[in-house]
Formats: sequence, structure tokens, C-alpha cells
Amino acid sequence: MAHDLYYSPNPPEDGMLTITGPEARHISRVMRHEVGNVIGVVDGAGAEHEVELTAVTANRVVGRVLSKTRYAREPEHRVAIAQAVLKGDHLAQVCAQATELGVSRIIPFQSARTVGRLSSAKLERLCAVSLAALKSSTRTLLPVIDAPVEFGDLLKLDGGFEQVLVAYEDETGPGLDTVLKRGASSVLVVVGPEGGFEPFEIDALKAAGAVSFTLGPRRLRAETAAVAVAAMTLGLLGDLG
Amino acid sequence: MAHDLYYSPNPPEDGMLTITGPEARHISRVMRHEVGNVIGVVDGAGAEHEVELTAVTANRVVGRVLSKTRYAREPEHRVAIAQAVLKGDHLAQVCAQATELGVSRIIPFQSARTVGRLSSAKLERLCAVSLAALKSSTRTLLPVIDAPVEFGDLLKLDGGFEQVLVAYEDETGPGLDTVLKRGASSVLVVVGPEGGFEPFEIDALKAAGAVSFTLGPRRLRAETAAVAVAAMTLGLLGDLG
Repeated sequence: MAHDLYYSPNPPEDGMLTITGPEARHISRVMRHEVGNVIGVVDGAGAEHEVELTAVTANRVVGRVLSKTRYAREPEHRVAIAQAVLKGDHLAQVCAQATELGVSRIIPFQSARTVGRLSSAKLERLCAVSLAALKSSTRTLLPVIDAPVEFGDLLKLDGGFEQVLVAYEDETGPGLDTVLKRGASSVLVVVGPEGGFEPFEIDALKAAGAVSFTLGPRRLRAETAAVAVAAMTLGLLGDLG
Repeated sequence: MAHDLYYSPNPPEDGMLTITGPEARHISRVMRHEVGNVIGVVDGAGAEHEVELTAVTANRVVGRVLSKTRYAREPEHRVAIAQAVLKGDHLAQVCAQATELGVSRIIPFQSARTVGRLSSAKLERLCAVSLAALKSSTRTLLPVIDAPVEFGDLLKLDGGFEQVLVAYEDETGPGLDTVLKRGASSVLVVVGPEGGFEPFEIDALKAAGAVSFTLGPRRLRAETAAVAVAAMTLGLLGDLG
């Protein structure tokens, strides 16, 4: 990754890649790229194209594909975070930081102690924040951000995860390093809302196969717990260095 | 910790603790505590007193000390973060989250690519943010937040750390789990500014005994790197669960 990185979901056609919309304006007007320059373009689905520009206008940038890589700089393990809907802009912070760190999917959910709901406008903002983090972090795979689900549907979720963990503030038992299966290729970690989980929710998660763990005796804000969990999980799986 | 937790640096005298200022108003007016109620009071230096209130007015709350503990809920290891000064409010976010996670000291520093300076007003705000995080996280020890130091003085800093590590964005070698000494009782981790370190700065840190590590191939924003480093370090040392 030796050049500027941009995002475009368009696939190449006959070896040529076309970028339109705000990203084209950014390339042409802000970064002032010219014909002949080479840029990187990620499609958010894992592909990265090295592109030599052949036409640059304000709204449309075209280039010849020089090379293609798949899943460059992506973690080997799929780590997903189910995060209870949070007040204010905290869920956006979680989406940005989880995207940078390498999380593959973020599932917002409503639980007993969740305050407020996630509007479709707010969900759109989460996706925009995640896309910005994709580019700043040079990721090639854009995390999926689900529409918010009810707690009951979270229990029934079939994401093909090998392991489901839940950070529980009243857990006094094992920590993440004890419960996390090192061989698992995919793991979902559930993090509660500001007020934590109701005990019946933890019981239901455990009945559905989840394993609870503690983050220690200090009380973490939900957004701090989510980012700590993302970093520690990816770190323990060997995907953060 | 079964009751409300408040902060007062005043030591008890003859078994009585006096709380004044905004925290007294918070106890009396906002939380409406009355004579006879039992609250917890931390002094930020490790002590926590269980106090039965004997006098409650708007500006002065007095109580009898029932019991005292030292360093409750504190990590066993001292983990300090040296963080390059950041733009906007990002250093405040780092101070809040590092405090919650259990960091013992935060050392802001100026480096070659640092943008802007840390004014004394901003430093005061960092301390206020850290104090709020102390209370929300139920910590008993308030992290020290140093006045900002020049990079050269960071090299000469004698904090009695058993190990000094530096997160380096161009490092392709070992990760944190490889370089972190598990037996070390105190460690300082250095995190750079938005634009990263100059190679000569890494050379100088290494010459002073620091070991560099990678956080993986993705590019992390400085504040995300700092929080990830705090969580991963405390986690690997067994202090996050």
C-alpha cells in the first residue's frame, strides 16, 4: 500500500475501473490527481485494485487496473461485536474504532436496559463512520453493520459463529483470555448497554450457548468495553500484530 | 462496593471525614443523601472509606468512617501510557478510557509530527475528565497526568519502569504479546501522534532501551491505538479479568 487509497464499490469492466460521486470529486478536486497517477481503490468487499488514471473529471474518474489483491491487511479471524444501542454518539465511536481494529460485523441490539432506539438516519451515520474508518485504516473489507435487532432475535441469530461470548459486568469468573477459543475462526462478542444486562438476559444468552466473561472489577462504560473487547479479542487471536 | 461512590481528597480526622465543594453539593442536592445514609468515598490515592453521614448541608457533608480499604479494584501492575499530544479532544478521550481501564499514569509529549500544543487549560480538562472516569469506573487511584514533556525529556524520564515499549506503525516485527514481559510489575507504552513517529525518534527510543512492536497492518488512529494498547497490556498482564 504505497499510494493513496480510495473507496469504490464498482467492479472493473474490461480492465477499467470507474469511480463516481463524492470519491471522484475527492480524487480530482481535493487530492488533485492527474492522468497517469496511480492510486489504490478498495471495494469494501475485500478487493483492492491498483489503478493508473486515464481520465479525471470532477464527477468521474477512470483508470486502468494494474493489479488486484484480495483481503490485504484483513484479520485472519472473523470477530463480530453485538453492541446494545447506546445513547448519543457512542455507537458511532464504537463502529469507527471497531472498524479500524479489524472487526468484521457490528450488530446493534435492543435490550431491557437500552435507552433510546437506533433510527434509520443514525444507522446510516454508523455506516458512513465505518466507511471513513475503512479508508483511514486502509482496510479492504467494510464491516457489515446490521439493522438493530431485538434481544430475542439476537439469541436466534445464526451468523455461523464458532463461539459466542458475552462481557458481563457481574461476572466474577473467567476473563476473556480464559474463555476465548484460540482455534476459533469466528467469534461473536456481546456487549451490553450503559446500564448493563439484566440477569435473565445473561441466563438466556447462556442457554443459547454463549459463555460469559469478566473485564475485571472496574466498571467500564459500554463504548470502552466494546473497544477493549475488540482489541483484546483480535490481539489474543494474533490479528493485531 | 455496594453503595454510591464519591471523591474527596481530604483525609479523615479523628475518624470523621469532611467533604466540601461540588462533591458535597452533589451528595446533598443531587443524590439527596440524608444523615444515617452510608456512602463510599475514594481519595484518589488508593484509599476508600465507607462513611455513615452525620451532617449534610449543601456545601459540607460530614460522616463517620466505618471502614477503610486500600487499592480496592486497582490493577496489580502499573501500566503507564506516554501519548503524543493530539488535536481536538482526542487526548481527553484517551485519558477517560485509559483511566477506566486501569492505567496508572498518562504522560503527554511533544514529538516531531505533533500538531498543536497542550495548554494548561487543556491539561486541567484532562485531569477533570480523568477524575470523572475514576468515579464512573469505581477506581480508587487517580492516574497521574503529567504536564506535557518534550520528546527529549521523555527519553530521559525516570519513572522506574521495568519495561518501555513503543507502538510503531512501521514496525513489521513482533506484536505486543511477544515483547511484553509478563513478570514486569510496571511498564510504559509510548504511542505517537496522528502522523506517527519519525524514524530518528524510534531510533532514539530504542537507544534509550525501549522495544518497538506492531499493532498489525491496519493504520490505527492515535486514540484508538492508545486505548487498544491500554486494554491489551492490562489484559495480557491479567488485570482486565
